[in-house]
Order: sequence, then C-alpha cells, then structure tokens
Amino acid sequence: MEYIHVKGSLCAPKGFSAAGIHCGIRKNKARKDLALVFSQTPANAAAVYTSNRVQAASILATKARMAGKEPTLRAIIANSGNANACTGAEGLATANAMADLLAEQLNLSGREVAVMSTGVIGLPLPLQPIKNALPQLIDALDSGAQGAQDALAAIMTTDTREKDLAIQFNIDGHTGSIGAIVKGSGMIQPSMGTMLAIITTDFALSSPALQQALNQAVRRSFNRVSVDGDTSTNDCAIVMANGQAGNVPIELTDAQFPLFQEALSYVCVELAKKMARDGEGATKLLTCTVQGAGSEEGAEKLAKAVIASSLVKTAMFGADANWGRILCALGYAGVDFDASTANISFISRAGEILLCQSGEAIDFDEGLAKKILLEEEVEILIALEQNNCPLGPYTLSAWGCDLSYEYVKINGDYRS
Amino acid sequence: MEYIHVKGSLCAPKGFSAAGIHCGIRKNKARKDLALVFSQTPANAAAVYTSNRVQAASILATKARMAGKEPTLRAIIANSGNANACTGAEGLATANAMADLLAEQLNLSGREVAVMSTGVIGLPLPLQPIKNALPQLIDALDSGAQGAQDALAAIMTTDTREKDLAIQFNIDGHTGSIGAIVKGSGMIQPSMGTMLAIITTDFALSSPALQQALNQAVRRSFNRVSVDGDTSTNDCAIVMANGQAGNVPIELTDAQFPLFQEALSYVCVELAKKMARDGEGATKLLTCTVQGAGSEEGAEKLAKAVIASSLVKTAMFGADANWGRILCALGYAGVDFDASTANISFISRAGEILLCQSGEAIDFDEGLAKKILLEEEVEILIALEQNNCPLGPYTLSAWGCDLSYEYVKINGDYRS
Repeated sequence: MEYIHVKGSLCAPKGFSAAGIHCGIRKNKARKDLALVFSQTPANAAAVYTSNRVQAASILATKARMAGKEPTLRAIIANSGNANACTGAEGLATANAMADLLAEQLNLSGREVAVMSTGVIGLPLPLQPIKNALPQLIDALDSGAQGAQDALAAIMTTDTREKDLAIQFNIDGHTGSIGAIVKGSGMIQPSMGTMLAIITTDFALSSPALQQALNQAVRRSFNRVSVDGDTSTNDCAIVMANGQAGNVPIELTDAQFPLFQEALSYVCVELAKKMARDGEGATKLLTCTVQGAGSEEGAEKLAKAVIASSLVKTAMFGADANWGRILCALGYAGVDFDASTANISFISRAGEILLCQSGEAIDFDEGLAKKILLEEEVEILIALEQNNCPLGPYTLSAWGCDLSYEYVKINGDYRS
Repeated sequence: MEYIHVKGSLCAPKGFSAAGIHCGIRKNKARKDLALVFSQTPANAAAVYTSNRVQAASILATKARMAGKEPTLRAIIANSGNANACTGAEGLATANAMADLLAEQLNLSGREVAVMSTGVIGLPLPLQPIKNALPQLIDALDSGAQGAQDALAAIMTTDTREKDLAIQFNIDGHTGSIGAIVKGSGMIQPSMGTMLAIITTDFALSSPALQQALNQAVRRSFNRVSVDGDTSTNDCAIVMANGQAGNVPIELTDAQFPLFQEALSYVCVELAKKMARDGEGATKLLTCTVQGAGSEEGAEKLAKAVIASSLVKTAMFGADANWGRILCALGYAGVDFDASTANISFISRAGEILLCQSGEAIDFDEGLAKKILLEEEVEILIALEQNNCPLGPYTLSAWGCDLSYEYVKINGDYRS
C-alpha cells in the first residue's frame, strides 16, 4: 500500500502537541534536553522495552505505570544527556518524580504519564533542573510541526539527522494519521526494543490491538537494524492512540486491524532505515535482503548476521567487493545454511552485479562493483535457490551501516 | 604450576621440524606463503575446527583425512594468501592435491597429511606454485628455531607479531615439551575453533586423551578471545603428539593426564592472549575477569559479552572510564544477571580503581582511571557478590582488544 507522507511528525495526528526545551541536564545551553508529548484526550497506549537485564530507572518507572490490562497515557516526558541507568533507588525515585510532578501540573493521574531517558549511564540524574523547567515545558506545548521538531531535538544524542515521519490514510472513511519521532544511532542491535521511539495516532484501537500492532512493527523494523551490536539499557518504543479520528475502535479480529498494522509497520520500517543510515559514523545505508528462505526466522538470522558483521561493515566502508565475508557471516548465523544455495549480488543506483553463484566465486567486473558500492545506499541481496527454484517463500530485509573511522572517534571518548 | 619457557617454538619437542617459504600464492615475494610441519615418527593427532557452516576446502579435506578413531599425522601443510574457501569442488580437489602431492614426496600415506589455508575467501587457490615448490619446501625442513619461525611467517596474514611458544616439563621423570605457532588477528570470535594453531608435543598420549586435552585447552583459550565477532570459515587447531619423550602413553584416566591437560591449556591461553593483543588495529590487550560466578558457563558469557562490545572496546581505545557500557554489556550477555551484585574495577600496572559498587556509580578519581586505562594491558574485573559473599566459586577470564581507527583501515580494503 502507498501512504501519503504529511508534515507535522508526531503532531500530525489530531489532538497531540509536543515541546522540547533546554532545562540544564546538558551543559551546552544550545542543546535541548527535555521533551514532552501530550494528548488532549486519554490515549490507549502500548510499549516495547529493551531486553537488557540492566534496565534504566525510566524503563522500570514506565513499566510500572503502564502495567495492567488497558494502559492509558496522556503524556510522555523524556530527557537526553543522562540515561538515569545504574543509578539505584535514587534514580528510580527521580524517574518517578519526573512523571509525578508533570502529572500534578497537568492535572493528570500519575499512571497517565510515561518517562524515557537517554544519555550517559551511571551518573545521577538531577531532578531540580527538570522540576524547575516543567512550567516552561508545558507552556511550550505546540500542536504544529515546530512542537514535534523541538521534542525530537530534545531526545537526540549523537544523532546527526532528524528521524521522524507522518503518514495519512483512511480507515472506514475516517481520515487519520500516524506520526513518530525516533532517536538512536548507537547501542542499536537486533532482537530488542532498540532506541527511543514515540509514536502517535488519532485512530482508535483497543489496547490488545495496539500492542499487537506495535509488537509486529518493532519486530519488522527496529529489531532488524544493527549499528554496533550493543543493546541499550534504555531502549523503549511507545505508541499512543487517542481515537480523535472518530473511527470505531479497531479490535484484533477486525478487518481494519491489518490496515493499521501494516501502516504502523511501514512507519517503523522507514524510521529504522533512517536510524541505520544515521548509525554512528555511517557513510552509507546497507540493506541486506534475503530472498527465498524456508522460514522467516531463518531469513532474519541470515540478514542480521550480514548486517552486524564488522568485517562486512568495514569492507562496505572501503567499497571493497569482498563477498567472501558475506558468505562467511551467513555461515555463522546460527541457522542450517548450505553455501551452495546462495547467490550474492550488490545493488545500488549505479547498477546490479552478481558476485557469487551457488556459493562459489564467479568472474565479475571489479570496476562496476566498486562503482555500485560507492553509492550511499547499497543492497546486499542473498537469493537462496536449489535447482533454480527458491528454497522457500520468505523474503525480508535487515538494515545497517558501514563501520568507519568516525564510529571509533565518536565512541572513543563519548563522555567528554 | 610454573612452566619453563624454552626456545624453538614448535620444533622444541623432539622429532619435529618445520619450514616456510615463498611459493607464489602471494604476489609479494618478500612474504612467505607456504608452511610445512613434519614429525620424524607417526604422531597421534587431534583437531578442533571452525563452527562456521561455511567451511573452507582445507577444513573439509583435513576433516576427512583425520576421520576415524585414532588419527595419526606425520605432516601439516599450510598456506597463507588464499583461504581456499567458497571455491567448490575444484577448491576441494586443490586442498586434497596439496596434501597428496606432499605425502607422495615424503613417502607417507595421504591420511598422514593435514592441510590448512588462510587468506582471502572466494578466489581459486592455484595448485601449480604449491606443486612446484614442494621439493624446496621439504628441503628447507629444519628442526631448529629457524624452521619454526619460517613456518610461522608463512601462515601469518594481517598479524603484526609472531605468536609462538614452547614450554618444557616433566611427566614421570620424562622431560618433554609442547610447542606451538598460532596465526590470527581478525575473524576471531568466541565459541568456535578460531584461527590456525599448530601444536606439537613429544609426550605420548592416547588419541582420546589428546583430543580431550585439546578440547579443554581450546575452550579455555581461543574460545575466550574476541577481536571482531566474526567467525572464520578456516579456523583450525591441530595438535600432534609423537611420543619421542619416551613416557608411557597417557590415557584419559591416568593421573598424568591432568598434568598434560593443564600444560596444553597454559600454552593455548598464552597464545590466545598474544592473539588478542595483536587483534587488528589493537593498541592494548583487554582481559575481562569475572569473579565469583555461580557457573562456569555464566561467567564465560559475561566475560565474553564485555570483551566483544564495540562500545566497551572504543571506550578502552579512548582510555575513557565509561563503566556503564560494561554493565550494559553484562546485561545483554544472555544470562540471569542482577546488576546489584556487580562490582567493576579497572586494573593495570598503573594501579587499581573501583568504579561501580553493587551496580551503582561511586565517586572515583577520573585522573587515576585515565592513567590506568592508558596502559597497554588493562584488566576489567567484575566481582559478583551478594551480602559481601561471592555469588559462586567460578572465576575466569576472556581476552580481547580495543577497537581503533586502524581496525577500520585494515579491513576497509583488505583485498587491495
């Protein structure tokens, strides 16, 4: 399905506003560090959290607030500059205070506010600057594109590009939209929550339907991105659905559910690709597509192994057509892989080239391969075949980036 | 136990000789590319291979030759400059021909010769230069330190340091030794065979005892090293025991078995550390020691997760005491880890410093931490405790290196 891209990011859906300001968590006054996303009316909400055993105070606080069968949110408060992770009981108290103080000032119940943090691990998060800034933050709420942009700016850390999106579509004659902001360019690894994502929609959905749609969208998007193989303590994606589009709330079993689910997955996949392209130090977006696999799980493991391989990533940085490293990564992906079924091609705007057929080297034009790899978007296509027939019906992609000098530079002294 | 280090590397044990020459696989004539290790008398042999599903022709050929209950070897032929991997039936024929032609010229059975390869994947390995060079290679066999050194030089690729060792010790009044050469500085990842290792000993052991000793040694050493998380298609470790020390062959159940097993593990651990320190682009050796774990498997997973984390590795490169990344890696190690049990310290020649107690930040001297991290050998100590008591009896280490600009440079255009 084709979706209409619209302006306004997470403020595109009706009834949402947002703000982002500098409150003083960061030393640099030019950088925003506190964000607020607000829904005029109660919104059904769903969340996916990091799979890391070490979980930030904000994760613990939000989990507790969103516990129960049908969580409802009115607001999300998020800060950058400090992860509030490994900060013990005091850190948890700070996370809860952030949410409770905001709830108080907005006349909400404490359970209607979620909290997110991102930044350095292990430093105490000071409550005072946040507390002091709440009136200003609330005052800055804006239902236009600017509010969304400010909120996004306030959750960015080493991100170099703004990653947001809004799409509009119809369900049963009701026009609504999905908007989202995402932050994350390091600490990103397949198979977990991943980064901070705040998603809004004015379509109405039941809680189970919303959770199910988010689960699938995250699995197909953020969980198929790898930048450096590290899983954050703070990763969290939350979606709020306030129903202002006026449709009858969509249930899991409704015919409308797949429409919404596909649209949400589309938004998350687009943002996942933006994240991969903005991977720390990345010079290009890599897509690894596995075609003709016998199972979805197997295809996913193969695509992720290629995308996560340091040797593949450095070869892509150097525009070096070292396809042997790709076959090697497929070999250790942890699935029953038979090299003789694999055909490997590189694809970009500059062309398409087959480098390996049935697991073996074939002659190829090195000059053309180089030209293809020098592009900013490169697809590594693994077509699995036996006797000229696909091994199975599954085709899917994972996304990543190359590994450059800049990655090392960014992470060699992040705290300074 | 303390071991006496002796000269001679893999020629230190009686009855072994070795050679290394340039035969023409590499374009650069100054670089040796063909190695031979030879035992005067039949040697019981054992091997451990890569766990990669894609296996080089040399691995397939050697596996077939060493199949059966009590494999015996007289010689190992190894080349660098070409991995002979993903080269199909022709590649397998070449690997077998290397071994068979050598066997013919040495008057051996084909099953007495193993073959190893390392280098670029996917290019056909030319047989002719190897075939032509065999008389010269055999002629160059030398039972002194020079032979071992030449053989080592002929299997090195991006290695910048020579990695070999020999130790001498007594078993039942018989003096014998273990010698070894190792190659590998990239494509190294926990949980598999790892790199090329050729180990010799003049002690006599039964085949099951030799295999068991090698399995344990590899598990404790090469399998606890990570450079970049990629697993090679060619990793292989072979040990040959020719019995020339004159002891009664050691059986699995003999009291002498643990003595040999510990010595072999010692040799492999020392070489594993040398490999980690020589990791591509590495500026320092990192040791992560997990102390007081409840299980050996758990301790291993925790130590490996820290050593393999790109974010920890870049922080170490930058001498940045970003201990939160260590706790984060422990959290996603895939074990039931409770952050509140973890104390994290850095240790080097410059001192020792505690940064995190019971999973929480403590005040520490940033200047001292920097000084400690600027050393060439740094230990990250994770002490697991509850109520001031260790969680369990297991303490072990894993080894790795930092991630530097140089790693990216080396791998960005390896084939050129």
